[in-house]
Amino acid sequence: MTSSPHPSVCLGIDVGGTNIKTGLVAHDGRVVASTVRPTPQGPEAALAVIAEMFDGLLRKANVRREEVLAAGIGTPGPLSPSKGVVYRCANLDGWVNVPIRERLAARLHLPVVFDNDGNLAGFGEYWAGAGGRFGDMVALTLGTGVGCGIIIDGRILHGHHENAAETGHMIVERHGRPCPCGQRGCLEQYASAAGVAKRAREEIEAGAASVLRERAGDLAALSSRDVAAAAAAGDALCRRLWQDACEYLAVACVNLQHLVNPRRIVLGGGLAESGDALLLPVREAFTRFRWNLADDYPEITRAVLGYDAGMIGAAGWAWETLARRAS
Amino acid sequence: MTSSPHPSVCLGIDVGGTNIKTGLVAHDGRVVASTVRPTPQGPEAALAVIAEMFDGLLRKANVRREEVLAAGIGTPGPLSPSKGVVYRCANLDGWVNVPIRERLAARLHLPVVFDNDGNLAGFGEYWAGAGGRFGDMVALTLGTGVGCGIIIDGRILHGHHENAAETGHMIVERHGRPCPCGQRGCLEQYASAAGVAKRAREEIEAGAASVLRERAGDLAALSSRDVAAAAAAGDALCRRLWQDACEYLAVACVNLQHLVNPRRIVLGGGLAESGDALLLPVREAFTRFRWNLADDYPEITRAVLGYDAGMIGAAGWAWETLARRAS
Repeated sequence: MTSSPHPSVCLGIDVGGTNIKTGLVAHDGRVVASTVRPTPQGPEAALAVIAEMFDGLLRKANVRREEVLAAGIGTPGPLSPSKGVVYRCANLDGWVNVPIRERLAARLHLPVVFDNDGNLAGFGEYWAGAGGRFGDMVALTLGTGVGCGIIIDGRILHGHHENAAETGHMIVERHGRPCPCGQRGCLEQYASAAGVAKRAREEIEAGAASVLRERAGDLAALSSRDVAAAAAAGDALCRRLWQDACEYLAVACVNLQHLVNPRRIVLGGGLAESGDALLLPVREAFTRFRWNLADDYPEITRAVLGYDAGMIGAAGWAWETLARRAS
Repeated sequence: MTSSPHPSVCLGIDVGGTNIKTGLVAHDGRVVASTVRPTPQGPEAALAVIAEMFDGLLRKANVRREEVLAAGIGTPGPLSPSKGVVYRCANLDGWVNVPIRERLAARLHLPVVFDNDGNLAGFGEYWAGAGGRFGDMVALTLGTGVGCGIIIDGRILHGHHENAAETGHMIVERHGRPCPCGQRGCLEQYASAAGVAKRAREEIEAGAASVLRERAGDLAALSSRDVAAAAAAGDALCRRLWQDACEYLAVACVNLQHLVNPRRIVLGGGLAESGDALLLPVREAFTRFRWNLADDYPEITRAVLGYDAGMIGAAGWAWETLARRAS
């Protein structure tokens, strides 16, 4: 992007089911260069693609290899940040017990930090997005599921089993909808993009009236965007499902307030693309549901980094880890 | 208790609505001496009583003043640990904007740490009780409300507004029972000792059949112990309410698992005095409700320090703070 002298950078890598994103990110969160490539089959091929992408980024940004201080990589889990191992990856075949941190470090000749994609997307928003690097924060990514990162004192909350911040599986309805995880009434059954679309499909298949019924031949392709658009146009079914999503998100915000007491809760992902159509009813329901014993309410805002949050957060977590080791 | 030479101790103080507890506690969590006095009216009188209790403890345990390194004090809130100020105290008249840390330090000539009673009871269980000083932990105290302390990496979780771990106000039933806090469906409406007793009273007053009805003249005195005893004896109403309490606690445990991911969740307070009659159905419901995506379940166990948890935790938090400052 520029051929003028740079400050040092860290490499951020976000491995998803569809794409791998990489970027060179400065200490202030500025993305110096970034690239996207389709995710190949298996971890070996992915490591080769990442190495190529890294070379491409150095050329593209005219950055010398010595100016890259460290790399951060995020993947779906389950995984262990402390051991640097991916146990399995949802949506990624062939990723079984991969010592990803060690293997990436050997390939790139860089120190590597590793964490799950939800945690790093949350850290990205804290470090370079809606969090402003200040105060405890929770980021919710409302996509296929509900991804989450919880940041406390500038650190990712991992928990004893390194599986904290699975907020998508908070039970918000005791005898609610079954979730593939084995529970009932999980938040992501009501308030993920996929969950909203699925509820609409099921209700229409069961005979509910809706403007979306005319798509009956292609109900499988119905998305949360369709539900949002129909709700905005006054469709009763879609308005009810949308309001439900917002109210369950508000319950989750109340519960996060009382457990973690963050300064901000940041909403991102597909469902948040609706902007104020999501944010305003979530805030309205939160104001209706919340307590009045203390004025300790989180601000509920929209995420700002979009689909770069995981890549930026991976680089940011590498920066933070370097800073912590140096101090 | 002994006149042999001592290691150094810290003073622990737990100010409750009814009693003040104080104790001298060694670094290994051993209580060298302890005393209880009724809580007098107002903070000035309480400080005078605490100073007298401290002198009494020194004599009783034959400890010299120089052997006491620091003091910790816990009170009900709302309050600010970082500012050292009690804003108000539930159940304590006259405690308004009291700079308790500074005033206690001036009286005792000791460094003082200050926190809320739920946090310190939780820290006590972590430091000298069921937590074993290892792994993230959550303590729930099922009494008048549901007190809570969340311990992460050996530290009390405070949150941005210093009001974390208000787990009693987690919403477990979206359109549930109203709570004086202003919310609906708070955990403590279903699973505190007072909540269980109140539900039984209301149902009996509304005409429900129960062996407890014969006490109708004195329903106001009905306690969670009465409900537990009647449930154990097969009373249908009390069995249902008891099972409800256990199931809502299990929902709370699932939600704590997914947000905080602790190694242990420890149950104490009046409701936990029922022992296995509480613990076993909570575990059973937790096993029924929990996910199967990862084996990251917390152990659900009983608290072991009883009503000394807050006092021991106050002294333990003083010890921890000294150690952190020295390192």
